[in-house]
Amino acid sequence: MAQIAFIGLGQMGAPMASNLIKQGHRLSVFDISSAAVSALVALGATAAANPAQAALDAEFVITMLPNGDLVREVLFAADGVCSALSPAALVMDMSTIHPLQTDRLIADMQARGFSLMDAPVGRTSDHAQAGTLLILAGGTAEQVERATPVLMAMGSELVNAGGPGMGIRVKLINNYMSIALNALSAEAAVLCEALGLSFDVALQVMNGTPAGKGHFTTSWPNKVLKGDLSPAFMIDLAHKDLGIALDVANQLHVAMPLGAAAREVYSQARASGRGRQDWSAILEQVRAASGLVGKH
Amino acid sequence: MAQIAFIGLGQMGAPMASNLIKQGHRLSVFDISSAAVSALVALGATAAANPAQAALDAEFVITMLPNGDLVREVLFAADGVCSALSPAALVMDMSTIHPLQTDRLIADMQARGFSLMDAPVGRTSDHAQAGTLLILAGGTAEQVERATPVLMAMGSELVNAGGPGMGIRVKLINNYMSIALNALSAEAAVLCEALGLSFDVALQVMNGTPAGKGHFTTSWPNKVLKGDLSPAFMIDLAHKDLGIALDVANQLHVAMPLGAAAREVYSQARASGRGRQDWSAILEQVRAASGLVGKH
Amino acid sequence: MAQIAFIGLGQMGAPMASNLIKQGHRLSVFDISSAAVSALVALGATAAANPAQAALDAEFVITMLPNGDLVREVLFAADGVCSALSPAALVMDMSTIHPLQTDRLIADMQARGFSLMDAPVGRTSDHAQAGTLLILAGGTAEQVERATPVLMAMGSELVNAGGPGMGIRVKLINNYMSIALNALSAEAAVLCEALGLSFDVALQVMNGTPAGKGHFTTSWPNKVLKGDLSPAFMIDLAHKDLGIALDVANQLHVAMPLGAAAREVYSQARASGRGRQDWSAILEQVRAASGLVGKH
Amino acid sequence: MAQIAFIGLGQMGAPMASNLIKQGHRLSVFDISSAAVSALVALGATAAANPAQAALDAEFVITMLPNGDLVREVLFAADGVCSALSPAALVMDMSTIHPLQTDRLIADMQARGFSLMDAPVGRTSDHAQAGTLLILAGGTAEQVERATPVLMAMGSELVNAGGPGMGIRVKLINNYMSIALNALSAEAAVLCEALGLSFDVALQVMNGTPAGKGHFTTSWPNKVLKGDLSPAFMIDLAHKDLGIALDVANQLHVAMPLGAAAREVYSQARASGRGRQDWSAILEQVRAASGLVGKH
Repeated sequence: MAQIAFIGLGQMGAPMASNLIKQGHRLSVFDISSAAVSALVALGATAAANPAQAALDAEFVITMLPNGDLVREVLFAADGVCSALSPAALVMDMSTIHPLQTDRLIADMQARGFSLMDAPVGRTSDHAQAGTLLILAGGTAEQVERATPVLMAMGSELVNAGGPGMGIRVKLINNYMSIALNALSAEAAVLCEALGLSFDVALQVMNGTPAGKGHFTTSWPNKVLKGDLSPAFMIDLAHKDLGIALDVANQLHVAMPLGAAAREVYSQARASGRGRQDWSAILEQVRAASGLVGKH
Repeated sequence: MAQIAFIGLGQMGAPMASNLIKQGHRLSVFDISSAAVSALVALGATAAANPAQAALDAEFVITMLPNGDLVREVLFAADGVCSALSPAALVMDMSTIHPLQTDRLIADMQARGFSLMDAPVGRTSDHAQAGTLLILAGGTAEQVERATPVLMAMGSELVNAGGPGMGIRVKLINNYMSIALNALSAEAAVLCEALGLSFDVALQVMNGTPAGKGHFTTSWPNKVLKGDLSPAFMIDLAHKDLGIALDVANQLHVAMPLGAAAREVYSQARASGRGRQDWSAILEQVRAASGLVGKH
Repeated sequence: MAQIAFIGLGQMGAPMASNLIKQGHRLSVFDISSAAVSALVALGATAAANPAQAALDAEFVITMLPNGDLVREVLFAADGVCSALSPAALVMDMSTIHPLQTDRLIADMQARGFSLMDAPVGRTSDHAQAGTLLILAGGTAEQVERATPVLMAMGSELVNAGGPGMGIRVKLINNYMSIALNALSAEAAVLCEALGLSFDVALQVMNGTPAGKGHFTTSWPNKVLKGDLSPAFMIDLAHKDLGIALDVANQLHVAMPLGAAAREVYSQARASGRGRQDWSAILEQVRAASGLVGKH
Repeated sequence: MAQIAFIGLGQMGAPMASNLIKQGHRLSVFDISSAAVSALVALGATAAANPAQAALDAEFVITMLPNGDLVREVLFAADGVCSALSPAALVMDMSTIHPLQTDRLIADMQARGFSLMDAPVGRTSDHAQAGTLLILAGGTAEQVERATPVLMAMGSELVNAGGPGMGIRVKLINNYMSIALNALSAEAAVLCEALGLSFDVALQVMNGTPAGKGHFTTSWPNKVLKGDLSPAFMIDLAHKDLGIALDVANQLHVAMPLGAAAREVYSQARASGRGRQDWSAILEQVRAASGLVGKH
């Protein structure tokens, strides 16, 4: 069992720290809320007066904070982690922060002779309580191997995201997709309601198609991801159907800003000569618009 | 076995008509392409000189055409279907057209003493060949019951969408969702590439969350659809994460028009006082923006 | 003075017809509202039972209707204009309709041996009353010359838009720009309010810059329109400032969907290697995205 | 004539500092580029080894830097301005930075007993050379009065933006409007080209309407800004025209992301019951969507 500094005892951090104690680890904890600290002390943790004190003698340091500026401060301030940290320790930032900030943290720690990896988590505070979080580990093979026993005391599944900074990257991609998809789903559901169509019927149909199942596992794998742009469903037709949906929505006053933006993407794909390619070629269109073509 | 007029022998219509013949139905077919007509005659169909001739003595008339204007013309022109149609016949429009045009077709046919239902199809031309289309049937209970044996000669699954005009509505919702989602998926995939993250890792993670599985079956059923807006994941945090993704994307030149539109929706949700509600409350936000609140 | 058929006596049509009468023209009028017809008859017009009767003996026919479908019906229905029209007459469609519908009207009339030009109007119903409308004339040189005396009885300014269908095109471009600009102006004004800045101060500044004066007459003429993309204000910097504005707006909950869309356009310009070009090069970016490059 | 520290000798800063010298002021200058420093020394400035040295004995300190983080560093680092600054001096930040960062700078300086005002500039580096910049002064009445002689040595026009932080705010609003308008203008110009319409004709028309002249001085002052929402041009009609423009643009593959976003704003205005209000009521719509209604 390890000596662990845990800094940041909020809605997620508190139950995560609690699970580490239950597994037999020795914790020195810090938070700006003394109530949060007391709650952990009651479970067996030691209270630290500041991040430096928490980090003293630690084999692992875990930070679980609201943003990257706070992580920087906790690490590098006068009474910060680094002022007391052993070069042999491993710092794991489990916060959800800006990935380019993570990159700077990794570099700045390395420059000082310290080791930091990213390991943000998926799922909710209920999962944090139950110790069934999804751990998205970014780090060198050695860092991830060393961290795994500690991380798995808080979660039930660990994804090795493939290198330093990749944990926070995969978290960001996943959240981007699910958060924007949430807004798109709302547009479809509201159009459904405005059209007087049963949402149950819509779900019954969508859950058997890419509308409900997504494209990553249905329309893409055997098409664009293999370089095949031959049309199963042409971009011209997809553009037409999107136009009908927007026209109906605008007649019924249904707000469709994502759909409206999507139609312009299909329109640009047609302007690029892709009208008769498969709709999965939208991926190539967005790659081109982002300057990535030829950079594979 | 029935006497059926089939009008529109394109990429979808031709194999659908062919399957009807294989099942033993008697077909009288019309298309502007004489080659398309000849191909069906070779399989046992009778060629008609115009839609009227095709409709003569028909128990069922099927239209499978590129747009609603053509359907109108085929029905109502001087030599159109209605000039020879028996009031006892059932017309099934299987085309993908504007749903408000479908409504007008149904009303205009009824006013002339005829019966029309909508029955657009899902899936691809491969499925049309194999007779495994998804049939989205809109019509009265009586119309759907009567049409089912004929429709099931072309498909392997039939969804009764709940009333006249509902077949084309559910097709539109499904296509809207899948087509716009395709563009959103491309944004996420391209951001993944620009961030140097393995797409396989991203898929591994997303396929276990709403990002890959959708919200209709994960985050919504026990929350907003039951009137529960208590936060599992707050709109304020979703807005923050979307902001980070957009900031990174803009630094890396990745085009994110759907994500940018989505952030403004979340921003409006916050302006409406929903910042501390669950992210599934975006549904209520879009309903409100569309004037539907209080119209349940 | 001419014999004129005037069809469509709405908010704009009625005062326009009235001005023609005041100038000494003889009018035969038709509208579905008998009250509207009676009001004109009281001023000296003759009532027609249908468009055909109105067109009998007319030298000019003017249509001022809500949409293109109605114009088609008024022209081509059984009792429509064409059933009684002299091939020597000139039809002027002054409605605001879809320009591709205008093109079809022009072609269909020509195919029947008739002459139609477009002449939609600018300004408001107050200007229609005062006879000070802006006339946007599309037609052959001969048509425009012949129509001018009649048109100028309703307006104070006539722009020859350069050929058949060009009147409705310039109307559309103008309305597109002013309507979308209205929404953009609202975003700027609301951000101003949310920032606690006096709108009068903002106006004082903007009215001296392209923000208030527009780009067509300030930043473009000596730059991109002359092929000069050297930077006075770089796209990279414009993208940065837009990012600051969006960040502030999102912190303050100000809805900026147009601004958010604009930032993605600048981002795509940077992805295309235009970051260090002048911001007026956004024109070339949108041309490229629309497939127009190399088509000059 | 005053003793002035000038920090940041870039494309704008160098000619601004040069004009101060020409007017007789004594300058102590600092920049990370020694070449930039030497050029000013050749004109009569004194070179400083760091910001602190530059600030020694200064009556005024001017910062002209690329972003707010640099301004903070220049002020607050160990060898920063504040380590040598007299409490009697006035610091003028003329950089274009995030306005909420400006607010923090003002507060943090005040907490240390120092005085800082914002005074970003408008126009280009040509105007910086000529000493004809537009100065956007934010500060207390006393600060602005004291700064004016120094600022006017660099510019030909000074706008008192109304208080601390208001200079940077009005700069941001102005830039937001002009930068987004640039993208919107490109959409209109490209649609014009795709429609085969002469751009000169379009300009001739637009320069006589709000399309070219803007709404701030035309359609708004006597309408929405006075609380009058009675329709001169109804939102329903504006929404219709925008729909026609988008339909044509999508047929011609012209990219219209801003226009597409604008249509959804008008659609939401109609959903809010504003369809028959004047189009200037879009301002009230955006205010409501931003949570500002009732906050006047």
